[in-house]
Amino acid sequence: MSVVKLEASREWIRTELDNVVDFWLKYSHDTVHGGFFTCIGRDGEVYDELKYVWLQGRQVWMYCRLYRTMDRFRRPEILEAAVAGGAFLRRFARVSAAGGQWKCAFCLSKDGKVVKVQRTIFSECFYVMAMDELSRVTGDEDMQLEAEQMMEQLIYWVRVDSSGLDRPQHPGDVPTNSMAVPMMLLCLVQQLTEGRGPEVVQKYRELGSWCVQQILQHIQRDGTAILENVSVEGAELPGCQGRLQNPGHALEAGWFLLQYSAEWGDEELRTTAVNKFVELPYQCGWDKEHGGLFYFLDVEGYCPTQLEWSMKLWWPHCEALIAFLMAYSHSKKPELLERFCQVYEYTCSHFSDAKSGEWFGYLTQEGKVALDFKGGPFKGFFHVPRCLYMCERMLDDLLAKRD
Amino acid sequence: MSVVKLEASREWIRTELDNVVDFWLKYSHDTVHGGFFTCIGRDGEVYDELKYVWLQGRQVWMYCRLYRTMDRFRRPEILEAAVAGGAFLRRFARVSAAGGQWKCAFCLSKDGKVVKVQRTIFSECFYVMAMDELSRVTGDEDMQLEAEQMMEQLIYWVRVDSSGLDRPQHPGDVPTNSMAVPMMLLCLVQQLTEGRGPEVVQKYRELGSWCVQQILQHIQRDGTAILENVSVEGAELPGCQGRLQNPGHALEAGWFLLQYSAEWGDEELRTTAVNKFVELPYQCGWDKEHGGLFYFLDVEGYCPTQLEWSMKLWWPHCEALIAFLMAYSHSKKPELLERFCQVYEYTCSHFSDAKSGEWFGYLTQEGKVALDFKGGPFKGFFHVPRCLYMCERMLDDLLAKRD
Repeated sequence: MSVVKLEASREWIRTELDNVVDFWLKYSHDTVHGGFFTCIGRDGEVYDELKYVWLQGRQVWMYCRLYRTMDRFRRPEILEAAVAGGAFLRRFARVSAAGGQWKCAFCLSKDGKVVKVQRTIFSECFYVMAMDELSRVTGDEDMQLEAEQMMEQLIYWVRVDSSGLDRPQHPGDVPTNSMAVPMMLLCLVQQLTEGRGPEVVQKYRELGSWCVQQILQHIQRDGTAILENVSVEGAELPGCQGRLQNPGHALEAGWFLLQYSAEWGDEELRTTAVNKFVELPYQCGWDKEHGGLFYFLDVEGYCPTQLEWSMKLWWPHCEALIAFLMAYSHSKKPELLERFCQVYEYTCSHFSDAKSGEWFGYLTQEGKVALDFKGGPFKGFFHVPRCLYMCERMLDDLLAKRD
Repeated sequence: MSVVKLEASREWIRTELDNVVDFWLKYSHDTVHGGFFTCIGRDGEVYDELKYVWLQGRQVWMYCRLYRTMDRFRRPEILEAAVAGGAFLRRFARVSAAGGQWKCAFCLSKDGKVVKVQRTIFSECFYVMAMDELSRVTGDEDMQLEAEQMMEQLIYWVRVDSSGLDRPQHPGDVPTNSMAVPMMLLCLVQQLTEGRGPEVVQKYRELGSWCVQQILQHIQRDGTAILENVSVEGAELPGCQGRLQNPGHALEAGWFLLQYSAEWGDEELRTTAVNKFVELPYQCGWDKEHGGLFYFLDVEGYCPTQLEWSMKLWWPHCEALIAFLMAYSHSKKPELLERFCQVYEYTCSHFSDAKSGEWFGYLTQEGKVALDFKGGPFKGFFHVPRCLYMCERMLDDLLAKRD
């Protein structure tokens, strides 16, 4: 890939990030009740007013990250939106659970009434991300403390006792190491420690290392496949659940591991991250006929039971762009830049909507838009801007070094 | 549609029913642990051994129904399979719940260990269907009593107190009349009363009438649309949930109502069933470009948030075939027979697999096979054989009258 081509992609990415930020600033703010609408149609119309807590937390996080680290986004309306979103979350998202613990709701009405609480840890994770990043912008130490307290509870649920999550245990329900859990915790460790002193780094050091080991357990079948769910001992599970592959998720794990390996100077982990979590998911997950990454696959080649298995979703492509560019930045292997380029071409031409802004989220296997909204219960202001933000910064670094 | 064409379709349906029964007899029986495998691949291979209770109950019911009412299926291996399936269900599916109540598991391991329990009523509904139909074949009165006892509990959950289902109530979670609940109970009323004495009919009469009223609440927007979820007062709900349409489900409700109206001689209900629950879902749900019925639609024309909204699933087409043929049988309107013919042509040519038997379940909008298995977590021995069985009998009646 030539420097000219890299420069052109940086230019497109930078403009696209501006446009995507403008889209959400324009259409997603609930100026009456606070928080963000995330069910936003093709042309910006709000088609449902429910407020999904994952997406509330992610939008607060993303606004703050842009405000804090990119000069052109250090704008008052971005800070104000993040602060208002954080206030909405603090006021409405936390619900008391068994044993004096705090859970976060999964879904709220527009005025903050709890609609649904999931028996997982993810709403709480995005709450922590939002509070920590917001505290970095506002300097609110109480907020940072609250993020750390919620983090302690997450660690307790995952590593000590999950009964506070209210998940019934059944004799046939085999305990599982689902890759999402250590990935999410590793992401939070990186969030909470970034740029903070050695005391905080030390506090989360063992947890980070544990998360990495848990993620590495997903390398299966003599190192030839990343499987989404394994036993807690790190063995393959029977049936569809055990054979499931989620290439986009593995690629996301790949760049989490790359960041971690860079931070700790762990060469071996870097090699594993590239060879196993970046190369393998591409090899199995790229659709050689129509282009794009499959959503789910079965390692034995059976048809997955998820109806959307062959669809092309925006977020695996976002994660792939970050993973390939980061892997290239670390290793300088030209084929990784070629892969970045390939995913970039597919992504620009299929997901981005030049007419009304933002990206479509869901395409058919053949690449046709299958669902035309820009935001929905699981698509908010997160994967697209995070990808564009990270790629812009990595391209800046790469191009600066080439100059 | 000519008599010759009707005769040809009856011939195809009869042969297809034989083949489908053979497919499940051959591939689905677990002769070691009892019960049925339902995750069955394109060519008959078992690709997952989990046992989904809905599908266990449905297979017992279908085997018994065929054995009891169609001479050519009064075969010992069908009865034996049903009895073994019923024994597996009685032994493993029931789990004790709060307050001395019984729940049924949603999913079991192959040897009967509970994997998952849903906080809905549907596993229990299919348990009742299985036990009642099995008791009709075996003459086991205890079993019939057990079916009625479980039915009492279902009625209590739906109409008196749902706390036994263990669903947390949240302030923003508005109580909903979801069409599945009264449909399922109406189906059970018809199951439990069919051919039984006036005492039993009387026992469930008020419930049947209540179910019908609950279903009729789903006629919305001045009679122009069937909506899947309404408020308990019968008003439209806000947002995506309130605007959701499920044409196949409405068509299934249509033929439930037609059966009920015939039983009670209710002319007005018959007209409503045809005009609202058979005609409207076809008008909104038929894909004029590619053929087939959409899975989900939004009454305002927004894109549904269900990723599979535009896919063509086998079961809505099964329900449509029954609904159109029954509506024609009752009303003799020729356009209803034309609709039957249209759905029949699409179904034969797209879902049925002449090579390896049974039907594919999931097609893309364009009609390509998207998931190639014959059985899965939600596709078992039920919609296809029930459709073929009912259509064969209705065509027998229609053709006998024409002779």
